[in-house]
Amino acid sequence: MNSFGKLFRVSVLGESHGECTGVLIDGCPAGLMLSTEDLLPDLDRRKSGAKGTTPRKESDVPMIKSGVFDNKTTGAPILILFENKDVNSTSYEKIKNTPRPGHADFVAVQKFGGFNDYRGGGHFSGRLTVLLVAAGVIAKKLMKNIKIDAKLLEAGGMKNIESAIDEAIKTGDSIGGIVECKVSGLPVGLGEPFFDSAESLLSHAVFSIPAIKGIEFGAGFSSAKMHGSECNDEIVDTNGKTATNNAGGINGGITNGNELLFRVAVKPTSSIKIDKKTVDLKTGERVNLSVAGRHDACIALRVPVVLEAVTAIVLADLMLIEQKMKRII
Amino acid sequence: MNSFGKLFRVSVLGESHGECTGVLIDGCPAGLMLSTEDLLPDLDRRKSGAKGTTPRKESDVPMIKSGVFDNKTTGAPILILFENKDVNSTSYEKIKNTPRPGHADFVAVQKFGGFNDYRGGGHFSGRLTVLLVAAGVIAKKLMKNIKIDAKLLEAGGMKNIESAIDEAIKTGDSIGGIVECKVSGLPVGLGEPFFDSAESLLSHAVFSIPAIKGIEFGAGFSSAKMHGSECNDEIVDTNGKTATNNAGGINGGITNGNELLFRVAVKPTSSIKIDKKTVDLKTGERVNLSVAGRHDACIALRVPVVLEAVTAIVLADLMLIEQKMKRII
Amino acid sequence: MNSFGKLFRVSVLGESHGECTGVLIDGCPAGLMLSTEDLLPDLDRRKSGAKGTTPRKESDVPMIKSGVFDNKTTGAPILILFENKDVNSTSYEKIKNTPRPGHADFVAVQKFGGFNDYRGGGHFSGRLTVLLVAAGVIAKKLMKNIKIDAKLLEAGGMKNIESAIDEAIKTGDSIGGIVECKVSGLPVGLGEPFFDSAESLLSHAVFSIPAIKGIEFGAGFSSAKMHGSECNDEIVDTNGKTATNNAGGINGGITNGNELLFRVAVKPTSSIKIDKKTVDLKTGERVNLSVAGRHDACIALRVPVVLEAVTAIVLADLMLIEQKMKRII
Amino acid sequence: MNSFGKLFRVSVLGESHGECTGVLIDGCPAGLMLSTEDLLPDLDRRKSGAKGTTPRKESDVPMIKSGVFDNKTTGAPILILFENKDVNSTSYEKIKNTPRPGHADFVAVQKFGGFNDYRGGGHFSGRLTVLLVAAGVIAKKLMKNIKIDAKLLEAGGMKNIESAIDEAIKTGDSIGGIVECKVSGLPVGLGEPFFDSAESLLSHAVFSIPAIKGIEFGAGFSSAKMHGSECNDEIVDTNGKTATNNAGGINGGITNGNELLFRVAVKPTSSIKIDKKTVDLKTGERVNLSVAGRHDACIALRVPVVLEAVTAIVLADLMLIEQKMKRII
Repeated sequence: MNSFGKLFRVSVLGESHGECTGVLIDGCPAGLMLSTEDLLPDLDRRKSGAKGTTPRKESDVPMIKSGVFDNKTTGAPILILFENKDVNSTSYEKIKNTPRPGHADFVAVQKFGGFNDYRGGGHFSGRLTVLLVAAGVIAKKLMKNIKIDAKLLEAGGMKNIESAIDEAIKTGDSIGGIVECKVSGLPVGLGEPFFDSAESLLSHAVFSIPAIKGIEFGAGFSSAKMHGSECNDEIVDTNGKTATNNAGGINGGITNGNELLFRVAVKPTSSIKIDKKTVDLKTGERVNLSVAGRHDACIALRVPVVLEAVTAIVLADLMLIEQKMKRII
Repeated sequence: MNSFGKLFRVSVLGESHGECTGVLIDGCPAGLMLSTEDLLPDLDRRKSGAKGTTPRKESDVPMIKSGVFDNKTTGAPILILFENKDVNSTSYEKIKNTPRPGHADFVAVQKFGGFNDYRGGGHFSGRLTVLLVAAGVIAKKLMKNIKIDAKLLEAGGMKNIESAIDEAIKTGDSIGGIVECKVSGLPVGLGEPFFDSAESLLSHAVFSIPAIKGIEFGAGFSSAKMHGSECNDEIVDTNGKTATNNAGGINGGITNGNELLFRVAVKPTSSIKIDKKTVDLKTGERVNLSVAGRHDACIALRVPVVLEAVTAIVLADLMLIEQKMKRII
Repeated sequence: MNSFGKLFRVSVLGESHGECTGVLIDGCPAGLMLSTEDLLPDLDRRKSGAKGTTPRKESDVPMIKSGVFDNKTTGAPILILFENKDVNSTSYEKIKNTPRPGHADFVAVQKFGGFNDYRGGGHFSGRLTVLLVAAGVIAKKLMKNIKIDAKLLEAGGMKNIESAIDEAIKTGDSIGGIVECKVSGLPVGLGEPFFDSAESLLSHAVFSIPAIKGIEFGAGFSSAKMHGSECNDEIVDTNGKTATNNAGGINGGITNGNELLFRVAVKPTSSIKIDKKTVDLKTGERVNLSVAGRHDACIALRVPVVLEAVTAIVLADLMLIEQKMKRII
Repeated sequence: MNSFGKLFRVSVLGESHGECTGVLIDGCPAGLMLSTEDLLPDLDRRKSGAKGTTPRKESDVPMIKSGVFDNKTTGAPILILFENKDVNSTSYEKIKNTPRPGHADFVAVQKFGGFNDYRGGGHFSGRLTVLLVAAGVIAKKLMKNIKIDAKLLEAGGMKNIESAIDEAIKTGDSIGGIVECKVSGLPVGLGEPFFDSAESLLSHAVFSIPAIKGIEFGAGFSSAKMHGSECNDEIVDTNGKTATNNAGGINGGITNGNELLFRVAVKPTSSIKIDKKTVDLKTGERVNLSVAGRHDACIALRVPVVLEAVTAIVLADLMLIEQKMKRII
């Protein structure tokens, strides 16, 4: 449901316009130095404010409510809450009956019998990615020798990202993008041959980030056009180092000690000022809808730090399972 | 580990050149008509023999060992075994110390301390996809009104698939491909907003198929190049039917009642007759390796039925969780 | 770890003398009327204050932080927090190095490398049973036609419970007790033949209540002394009603439609004013320890409502799994 | 459902009078010496044949079908099958409509809509405990320094066990018993404070053994009659050794390094030759039923080795989770 992980387990809660959002981390090894300050750099990276991001300004002050004592993790569950403050729900009243195209409004009403908190997308909001980032910081801190780095490769199909965003803002439209994630320093042996392959677990977590519609590892979709003689990575030493990295650091579902490499496709923000047709659920009439709320012109700008976070969450769990990480730091 | 699913749970076992492979299905509703004959059509679709597939010929006779009584499922776990018969392990002796490029040989040795069954890839073998197909048939039978259909869109980067395969066979090389899966008849409401999104669960299961290196839903990677005004699917009626299907039938992680649509990237078969460099794990010397065993020139040819199967497995589980499927048929 | 349940999933967090404790409930059906007032009656039943219970007085004001909108559950995770207010940690400094006999002090230090929050027992405190009670109320509200009723049968080995407690208070000692739980209105068919038998799941949850050291279903330990001709419950109608209830409402791990009946053994509170010997972990010296904090002379007095709660939690999960409860109320 | 364990995961399958029963063990560390011979001693201990046990004679020859190569575990799932040979289903035809008192016949029909395999109890049969024993042997072999020892303390309420059984056989009746299990050599720290307490996990697994109706740890139900001053175990050294063991080796849900100690109540075998009343499910008429099949007069005789097995299964899982056992032996 709203949890992920076997030994390092992350659960999310809260709504966009409710009192708060929160993340519960169970299974975090004891003895890790942790304070709210540790969380701020990545939370800042995720924050809105730059050109192309929503004008909603949440202070994003994390409150660690449990699991930390004398600035160290205790081994008990860690709850981190974020209060919602800059909330303005007025513009959401009308979506109750006219689901926004591209949004979860329609499915939320259907799945939860109309009892869902529809304000700001409720529990479906991208706002909850702040929780993934907070949990991700803890996972990263647990894996000091592992470097996780994600960045936006292109937006709206262009490498010149800034100009693509300028153009989208000007027209009240939005654009998508491609984000790439690289992880170095991983041990060989994380993941399982079948259902818990490293790709399986990473993609499982990655698709919990709203707006992600595709993922590819190593050469990914390009490998579908390759010959084996080109795609197979030659092995160059007894540590398994390969000359190329078309596998993206994973063979047979298991990390091979090379750089873990994958890319995700981020669709354009669904909320745009341009009219799109939808239907009034009460009357059945087709109506035009433009979304007046505060939104990102390019949500992909804010994805890298979230992508790093879910990657770290998955890897921390695998490191514990494979006994590459100690239960007491 | 080797299991997937919460209420409809599939576990795989066995090795390529061991005594048998098998699949255990727990949580299958009681009262479903089931005989070995039901399994044969999809098992036949997966079988080798066509041009571009391995000359290894397994009869693939499924043996239902438990969970079925008077030709109906009983509600108890169903075990289906497949004996391995056409086994020839001689060509695998040398890979013990010289891991094949593109294969799991190196990671298997590392992860399992050299105790893995290396013959024919052991537990890592594509041979085990026969198990997914068998479980998939049962899942499909449980969902009579849901139609799952996968097909190979292109191979080696070409729509003219046969000629691409011919060329690969001629050169002792292999090629990859793109497979698309469509599902119609799904109810609204399968999946969860975050970690158990429909995309999360489908990709989790899909990446357990060997050789899959990418997945995209709906417009997928193309949506990264779109504007929101183009990508957002307009809603045309109160059932949530949309004019376009860039979302691939999923909004906010939840099925929206439109066609579920996704594509996967299949890399070229790793085993090829062309020399590639690897390393001798004992001496550290670099050596050339060509793989003499019996292999598919284009494993993507055999992926569609496997992709349908894992899709059915995921959906059957979600149908039970969401109470869209009865526990007694 | 700190979670229980498959579809109705309860997670606990917090420490006795930390900022707060909390419970996260995931998978609660949408549309259930829920307010903090609903929680108060059972929270009051659990509260201290009566003779034989601790003088620590927590107001136990539940704060519903998520998952409820317009006084109804939304289907999203429900977080309920309780602030700790009446905290006095001074008496706990000395237990850092001298673990209290009968307590978790020693194992907590060992398991968590000394990083555990030792104040008031930290995450191990009986204080956290308030969380079980809160989650239990929600589970009970979901099952309107099912009646769960637990009561203290005896304390300190005596039916005259009040005088047993008087005597324990007078001597600065503590006493245990037996609590019985009865559930009527259950459908036939909850539970599974093997690992998820109704007894398995109930006992799993019940042993998460601190101080429980035994559980028996129906005739329980008495049945070990019976003959089959006495123990077998005769079936009297086609609904499976039985003339006796030695099975405690469960056959083959599955509820049989008769009253569910079980008893638990509650050991005496470990914290007593009477000296017991322990060891100084730093010096290795044996020392006398009497526990000066505020404690219950008979914790069993407060167990019934907690036992009802965990019973309700287990049954709500089984009702969802077996599709005897709807996902939207 | 039919699985237990997080990292060392055991799944059972099969029916009493079907083709076979089997057990799947996933997550077993690689490199463990394992052959069918290793399984025989404990399988022999469980076998019938002694006075008081059923005349059904199964050869119980285990067939290891996967996960073992060159007599060592590979890290892949291990399937062990047992064929059913001495099957005689004729006496079971009549229970289709007249559920046996004390048995699962009634609930099986209800839960599985009448599709269950009713022959010999089907999937509910005590026959399946052979599977637990087989998995238990593997778990025991993984924990060489841990000694698990269970024995029958009393039968039919008497310490003179043999005479109690003689008397039961003479009258065509059956008797129950008490079995005690002791484990020495355990590390401190297995188990969790709340839902995954050592007692929770042990009792969960123990109640999957048919006929168990109660469990108590350490002083158990006696502790309910004790004072704290008596029940609290004094700590005598810095390893946590205690002077008494009323806690049964577990404090706060976590093993404390002392002997793990618990007892279970086994009810009398339900199948007896003495008439008991039941109901004809078709006609609603009350009828007398005596069970003519081959049964144990005292099933408790065969419980010790099964109890050891489930104990070992639970502990192996906890040892892996707590990183007290290596993934490669």
